[in-house]
Amino acid sequence: MDDVLRLGFVGVGMAVTRIFSEKPGITKLPYVKITGAADPRNHALDVFEKEFNAETYNNIEDLCKSRNVDAVYIATPPEMHAEHTLIAAKHGKHVIVEKPMALTIEDAEKMNDTADKYKIKLLCGHTHSFDAPVRKMREIVKGGELGPLRMINTWNFNEFMYRPWPTHELVTSNGLIFNQTPHQVDVVRLIGGGKVKTVRAWTGAWDKIRPGVGAYSCFFKFEDGVPATMVYNGYGFFDTAELMWW
Amino acid sequence: MDDVLRLGFVGVGMAVTRIFSEKPGITKLPYVKITGAADPRNHALDVFEKEFNAETYNNIEDLCKSRNVDAVYIATPPEMHAEHTLIAAKHGKHVIVEKPMALTIEDAEKMNDTADKYKIKLLCGHTHSFDAPVRKMREIVKGGELGPLRMINTWNFNEFMYRPWPTHELVTSNGLIFNQTPHQVDVVRLIGGGKVKTVRAWTGAWDKIRPGVGAYSCFFKFEDGVPATMVYNGYGFFDTAELMWW
Repeated sequence: MDDVLRLGFVGVGMAVTRIFSEKPGITKLPYVKITGAADPRNHALDVFEKEFNAETYNNIEDLCKSRNVDAVYIATPPEMHAEHTLIAAKHGKHVIVEKPMALTIEDAEKMNDTADKYKIKLLCGHTHSFDAPVRKMREIVKGGELGPLRMINTWNFNEFMYRPWPTHELVTSNGLIFNQTPHQVDVVRLIGGGKVKTVRAWTGAWDKIRPGVGAYSCFFKFEDGVPATMVYNGYGFFDTAELMWW
Repeated sequence: MDDVLRLGFVGVGMAVTRIFSEKPGITKLPYVKITGAADPRNHALDVFEKEFNAETYNNIEDLCKSRNVDAVYIATPPEMHAEHTLIAAKHGKHVIVEKPMALTIEDAEKMNDTADKYKIKLLCGHTHSFDAPVRKMREIVKGGELGPLRMINTWNFNEFMYRPWPTHELVTSNGLIFNQTPHQVDVVRLIGGGKVKTVRAWTGAWDKIRPGVGAYSCFFKFEDGVPATMVYNGYGFFDTAELMWW
């Protein structure tokens, strides 16, 4: 791997499409070159190939065999993240895997162990902990300029459960648990720092027509004693992001 | 007791002074007549006597022996609430006792038992659960017009710990625990209805110069499964009441 990271996308779906539509500058970065993609759907690959003049494949194995790819961005459905990460690692490709990292702790640990074994870098992203305001908050906490961190409290109310998700995606994500919770947990953990020691939580699934968990309250403490509350209501028609956009 | 309740005040301090200054209409209500007061401080009684043409005494026993008093409003310091309530009950006087009702569960239960025994009415007030917006919320929850209650979340940030409380009042109230927490608990319990089943909470005492608990996070569930979070930060310089006054 030289100074330019040659990047392949696994799963050219909504996440990757949004990266290109919202961050078109990514194709002009001096240290990243998009060199490949894998997806079972030829119509998605056709567009990709034309736009990036990149290699395209119908499965991840073939993409991972390419010598023109240093790292892959795994944006397949959540239930495939573990399997696809293991394949990439075994081919010596570094991995950026979309949130949620995996659907079980066991899978996540297997992914970490495999990354160690094959000496590849494994990054779970992209998440809101990379947002500038969140990183700034962590910087302030770490710098201690306002004294020690005392407590963290966050509310997230939006209409997540009524966005046009296909039912099977709500089911495999368990509502917002594997889709939105990773963002909130990730941000709170980055700002708090360290490990979480105790968790008490409650979940609510309030609408049979839109399956899965749509709301929760969670109370936890970090190892250093700092408490945090996280509340989410994905059936809410008051959008907390109107107060502070992230 | 006829249609007019003859009311005596026990402890003519800040709470009672605020009632008269903020609710002057109380002296003109057709069904309440202020007939007496007790306080060890003569300078407080002198003002009271002149203003209301009422009986005044230096101790609660003497006030409670008066035939011109049907009920007493106990606004003495928190650690005296139990003792004063028992005295009033034994004299057959109905009791309104300021929050906090008592400093221990045992005292509160003794107050309830004594009220039953002497057949007097015992009301713990006055608290924000009497506020019109709070009562309206309870009415909406009870009426079911928006469906069942799903969850309750509340934040209260203000500068409570830096208000000019004498240190001994902060100590006897344990910071905001016996002073402010009763309001938040009372409002949440009124809106939620029923009994609380489980509680997990954390408290913080962050300033040695201003003793007592100044912040907490609390997560609890009502018997019917509805969860609630209550967060208070009495060292906060952001006042949540700026968002929604109560």
